[in-house]
Amino acid sequence: MRNEKLIHALGKCINACNYCADACLDEDNVKMMATCIRTDRVCAEVCSTLNQVLSTKYKDVQGLIDYCIKVCEACANECEKHEHQHCKDCAKACRECVEACRSYAA
Amino acid sequence: MRNEKLIHALGKCINACNYCADACLDEDNVKMMATCIRTDRVCAEVCSTLNQVLSTKYKDVQGLIDYCIKVCEACANECEKHEHQHCKDCAKACRECVEACRSYAA
Amino acid sequence: MRNEKLIHALGKCINACNYCADACLDEDNVKMMATCIRTDRVCAEVCSTLNQVLSTKYKDVQGLIDYCIKVCEACANECEKHEHQHCKDCAKACRECVEACRSYAA
Amino acid sequence: MRNEKLIHALGKCINACNYCADACLDEDNVKMMATCIRTDRVCAEVCSTLNQVLSTKYKDVQGLIDYCIKVCEACANECEKHEHQHCKDCAKACRECVEACRSYAA
Repeated sequence: MRNEKLIHALGKCINACNYCADACLDEDNVKMMATCIRTDRVCAEVCSTLNQVLSTKYKDVQGLIDYCIKVCEACANECEKHEHQHCKDCAKACRECVEACRSYAA
Repeated sequence: MRNEKLIHALGKCINACNYCADACLDEDNVKMMATCIRTDRVCAEVCSTLNQVLSTKYKDVQGLIDYCIKVCEACANECEKHEHQHCKDCAKACRECVEACRSYAA
Repeated sequence: MRNEKLIHALGKCINACNYCADACLDEDNVKMMATCIRTDRVCAEVCSTLNQVLSTKYKDVQGLIDYCIKVCEACANECEKHEHQHCKDCAKACRECVEACRSYAA
Repeated sequence: MRNEKLIHALGKCINACNYCADACLDEDNVKMMATCIRTDRVCAEVCSTLNQVLSTKYKDVQGLIDYCIKVCEACANECEKHEHQHCKDCAKACRECVEACRSYAA
């Protein structure tokens, strides 16, 4: 499938975001992590929907891919502000997801 | 909340789409309903994500609202081709959701 | 539909949990809210799945209803520890969802 | 993470179920596939919720794992009735998911 690489990247991004959002809750400086938790959640949700839509033969996906790229970039930018390993891992997964979205759309 | 009306419309649309998708499976002419089932599923999924994102203070939602409008319109257009009551109900819920999206964005 | 009341209660519970989880992130004492945020998220997710499964004619739902009752009760118990209005509203929606689950199963 | 294998199996099962549900819609004998499509959808949804709950430190997951095992088995049993490659692939992913659920719970 043409979309296999993107589905794989989305799956990794969803897991990284969900894990990061929850791990942030146990950090000492959780107040500093509020935006990170919020963005993680939105990113996991949007990636999950794109994942499901790509599993179908529904054609008009470009608008959702564009939005997913924006959200993944916002999430990566936020996660990169923090030193926690789960934030770094999440940022990496988001960046890879952006790349996969762009390759797919190209 | 400013977004209360939209969240309500999204909830109704999600339920109508999920119900229509499943009810189509039991119709005699299920082959004719394939696109309807597919579009229902995408629509329920996208509305559900917008619903969740609107429950947060995440700011950048316009791209997702725009995509949701397109999907709801596609779903309404497809459902309006069929005479089943669940298709009619679904088309109505989709149209109301489009209106709610537009009012919110305005 | 026999399940209409439960689907309505689930919808309200999903929205209350998602809203509470996000509003908790902006509270001064966010560290104290970590368990509340986590439980809200699990509760919204489980209610959303039950909502979708009930929209179908899939028969074997009792195990999911039982689990949903447990999660809603856990979420209500946690939310009732806090004085924020969004926590109180969420606890109420969770309690009503438990009642609706029990009425449906009865 | 102890749950990494299960999260991986759930991800594969979600994708296989979503893909199978949509591919069934394009089969000639779509009427025969109605139960398969319905079960695929429920299975994808339940696996997705377990996936998300396992990404958190929420403790009380056994009831959801038990339900997930039942749904994955129901989905595998249904898919194994059909000769389509997507059904065979889906049945395999469901069986592996059952195994991963059992290993995790053990």
